[in-house]
Amino acid sequence: MKAVKIAAHAVITALVVSGVQAAALKPLPPKPSAADIIKESKAADWRALDPENTLYMDLPAGRVVIELAPTFAPNHAANIKALAREHYFDGLAILRSQDNFVVQWGDPDEKNPREPKQAKKTLKGEFTVPMKSDSGFTRLKDVDGYAPQVGHSNGFPVGRDPKTGETWLAHCYAMVGVGRDTDADSGGGTALYVVTGQAPRQLDRNITVVGRVVSGMPLLSTVARGPAPMGFFDKPEMQVPIKAFRVAADLPEAERNKFEVMRTESTTYQKVVEAQRNRGGPWTKVAAGHIDLCNAPIPVREVK
Amino acid sequence: MKAVKIAAHAVITALVVSGVQAAALKPLPPKPSAADIIKESKAADWRALDPENTLYMDLPAGRVVIELAPTFAPNHAANIKALAREHYFDGLAILRSQDNFVVQWGDPDEKNPREPKQAKKTLKGEFTVPMKSDSGFTRLKDVDGYAPQVGHSNGFPVGRDPKTGETWLAHCYAMVGVGRDTDADSGGGTALYVVTGQAPRQLDRNITVVGRVVSGMPLLSTVARGPAPMGFFDKPEMQVPIKAFRVAADLPEAERNKFEVMRTESTTYQKVVEAQRNRGGPWTKVAAGHIDLCNAPIPVREVK
Repeated sequence: MKAVKIAAHAVITALVVSGVQAAALKPLPPKPSAADIIKESKAADWRALDPENTLYMDLPAGRVVIELAPTFAPNHAANIKALAREHYFDGLAILRSQDNFVVQWGDPDEKNPREPKQAKKTLKGEFTVPMKSDSGFTRLKDVDGYAPQVGHSNGFPVGRDPKTGETWLAHCYAMVGVGRDTDADSGGGTALYVVTGQAPRQLDRNITVVGRVVSGMPLLSTVARGPAPMGFFDKPEMQVPIKAFRVAADLPEAERNKFEVMRTESTTYQKVVEAQRNRGGPWTKVAAGHIDLCNAPIPVREVK
Repeated sequence: MKAVKIAAHAVITALVVSGVQAAALKPLPPKPSAADIIKESKAADWRALDPENTLYMDLPAGRVVIELAPTFAPNHAANIKALAREHYFDGLAILRSQDNFVVQWGDPDEKNPREPKQAKKTLKGEFTVPMKSDSGFTRLKDVDGYAPQVGHSNGFPVGRDPKTGETWLAHCYAMVGVGRDTDADSGGGTALYVVTGQAPRQLDRNITVVGRVVSGMPLLSTVARGPAPMGFFDKPEMQVPIKAFRVAADLPEAERNKFEVMRTESTTYQKVVEAQRNRGGPWTKVAAGHIDLCNAPIPVREVK
């Protein structure tokens, strides 16, 4: 069977394409792939998720695991945990699935919506934070049209602008954001969305991003698209019910998943990125010489 | 209900962010959104799909409509039509769904695969074509890390390199490519894939891209992800059968869909792109000042 074989096996640095026919190029020498580098990684290249910053959203088909990013949205991360702890989301549902964009969950009852008890309904937007608040940045050398600088901070894709001193989480696939109305401060975490398509980076700095799905994306990305505008479901039976939404720390240890994320500040991670940026042969004929922020994989593994 | 409201309503050119808090910025004045501009478009801004370059893939859940791009892959486009005309794909299936990457279809029977009758099994790769073969290019002014120049050619996203004189179709969401083995010339169209995730632009110039899905993406993007490596299905019942795969011209006119694509060389299209590049208020607080090639919408409408 013919397969789109993207498991690159090797690479060298940026290839200069000098001929017109790619097929006429000298074959790229093999080099280790991202998968090879991940396989050779050491224990120190990984960090365990902090149960206090990890959310479990249990759907009928399985569990979605979200890592919160309190560095970038401290008040929203705390409020979403408070919502989880008062069981705010339990029994609510995924209400929207828009192709090549997002899924979103919240309260289906628009007329008589559930009110948070202790948690806040709205918060001041946390669209950006001062760069000095973030000590974990590792820059990618690659050009980006949406931000003067891009890279990763403790496992999250970020943009930053030295001129304004701001940094922010980038809207890549699997990132979790806070729905809001027109007012910048009208969100609080009672409506959350996850990016399921091409990175909508135009939302960067316009909305509070609070974390990233580290496991369970297929449970969200395959939700049937809604027929109403913006992918909303027009029939209650299209909704996907949320069975439970918990802070991992609140579950007995035996019921927690043990995920680890590769340290994006490690040299191993830089090698993973480089292996994707400039793949080797024999399948790859022309190395890209570039990687987009949202194409850089952030390896996750489950420790059984 | 709180919604991720991305229906932008207005815009002005690139906004200089001078403060640290986005919320403290002067509100962006409203301006027409992409949707507003599409609504105001004229008949001359649109072109009908050519039935001779349009494919219908009928799945149990509905029809996927593909526009072929013979300018960029003349031999593969012709061969895929020949395959369709000898009913090569009828009864075959979607065999693979890899999250945030592609779906792929072909012959599930690896041991005894169907052989093309008149059509070719393999062709010389058409990864790039000379720029002079393409007269329809309209450049985007936006920077791109994967290609020296990007833009659109007759409704398709493309990259080009004036130094090598090459142009190629870009791997954006919904683009259709030709699966191949390690040899550059080992594909021919019997295995096809569609991008269902973040644009895998590293595949550009490494594989033959033949067209774009203009309708029916949700039928492909929501196919349950396969559990085997690269998203392949490990059980036959996971496969999605292809009921029929036809050239639109071969169907009676009453059975054809009438789709139109906005002319990407039109000034109206440039306005659509600009409305996305620099959105207006009030929902948007900071205009992106940039648009990624694969974020630029290519409007399609069905004429009933």
